[in-house]
Amino acid sequence: MKINVMQDVLQANDRIAAENKQLFKKTNNLVLNLMSSPGAGKTSLLEKTAELLAGKLRLGVIVGDIETTRDADRISKYNIPSIQLTTGSACHLDANMVASALPHMELDKIDILVVENVGNLVCPAEFIVGEDYKVMILSVTEGDEKPLKYPMMFKESSLMIINKIDLLQYTNFNLEEAKANARKVHPGIDIIEISCTKGTGLDAWIAWLTEHHRKKAGGR
Amino acid sequence: MKINVMQDVLQANDRIAAENKQLFKKTNNLVLNLMSSPGAGKTSLLEKTAELLAGKLRLGVIVGDIETTRDADRISKYNIPSIQLTTGSACHLDANMVASALPHMELDKIDILVVENVGNLVCPAEFIVGEDYKVMILSVTEGDEKPLKYPMMFKESSLMIINKIDLLQYTNFNLEEAKANARKVHPGIDIIEISCTKGTGLDAWIAWLTEHHRKKAGGR
Repeated sequence: MKINVMQDVLQANDRIAAENKQLFKKTNNLVLNLMSSPGAGKTSLLEKTAELLAGKLRLGVIVGDIETTRDADRISKYNIPSIQLTTGSACHLDANMVASALPHMELDKIDILVVENVGNLVCPAEFIVGEDYKVMILSVTEGDEKPLKYPMMFKESSLMIINKIDLLQYTNFNLEEAKANARKVHPGIDIIEISCTKGTGLDAWIAWLTEHHRKKAGGR
Repeated sequence: MKINVMQDVLQANDRIAAENKQLFKKTNNLVLNLMSSPGAGKTSLLEKTAELLAGKLRLGVIVGDIETTRDADRISKYNIPSIQLTTGSACHLDANMVASALPHMELDKIDILVVENVGNLVCPAEFIVGEDYKVMILSVTEGDEKPLKYPMMFKESSLMIINKIDLLQYTNFNLEEAKANARKVHPGIDIIEISCTKGTGLDAWIAWLTEHHRKKAGGR
């Protein structure tokens, strides 16, 4: 007898993710699973997003970290509902961890819920948590070949945000090559270039969020 | 009955790692397990290392990647023994994967064997592969708080290389804070600051390698 542990784990995860999704549907939350390598700028993007959405759409955040509450502390300054999940040694969030946060959030007071995953370009892409879309950030300091080397992350993500474009001139990152590589593994992927520190491109990101929230709230 | 899958996996891994270590001992190889986030500069460091060690110490490399042979292709230009391990979906190298490469390497013609792990700041730190030391790279674009957020990687590594210090002036990375954070989770960790693109600090890295090879070959 052969036990496929990974398959069992993923099936259990999918079941709980479907339950989460049902909950989100009732309250019309647009739910994003935000992923990237460590330090690509997930929390910085959320800080900017909280600023720019204030008074327009209500943001809520679930932050996953192996240890420390630093990211949640940064987010909480923006006076938005946020929950910290400390995973201990787990290298990704799964549907059950996200489910454990939901009773502590007033989902009917949230328009867009972002689940900020553990910084990891590999494992988080394998686990759905009940999201509508996966969004990933690639920073230009990581290199333009990353879509080919970590294809699952790019295949699974509906949107690739290329961050830190203010550093482009100091690196050998080729923007066109990066986009071509991402489209090689996922032809339909949306791509937005931003700089969180300079504010470049954030209007396109807010437009993406607004449009996808409208679709969700309007019923797809 | 409770089955601790992870514990069984790690025990099996430790057994194979010990066998690898026995092999390395016979041929006096200094073996390093090189880890970092995606794009922190593992392959660039190995390219520089191959250049600088040429004619002094014989370098060999085992490169782990989820997909593509790009890193191994880059390394092979330096005319050093190198093996590519393509992990498929595995987010780290384990002892068995490394063992599978060893029959294809002439270990007695190698002084320093570097196992370049999959780009991931989490999972690789949990699996020994038979190495003498774990070495990790943190790039300044990732942020100075990373040792607190991903402590296991820093606890397990004997040496932290801080890379891309040429980009320091364009980031809010605080070098002293990063070092203090690393020493908080691992007081005895060695730290070397480098820039692979500018060549800064590579002499200290080569000195570290030479010294640790001397210790190994002299019998610790």
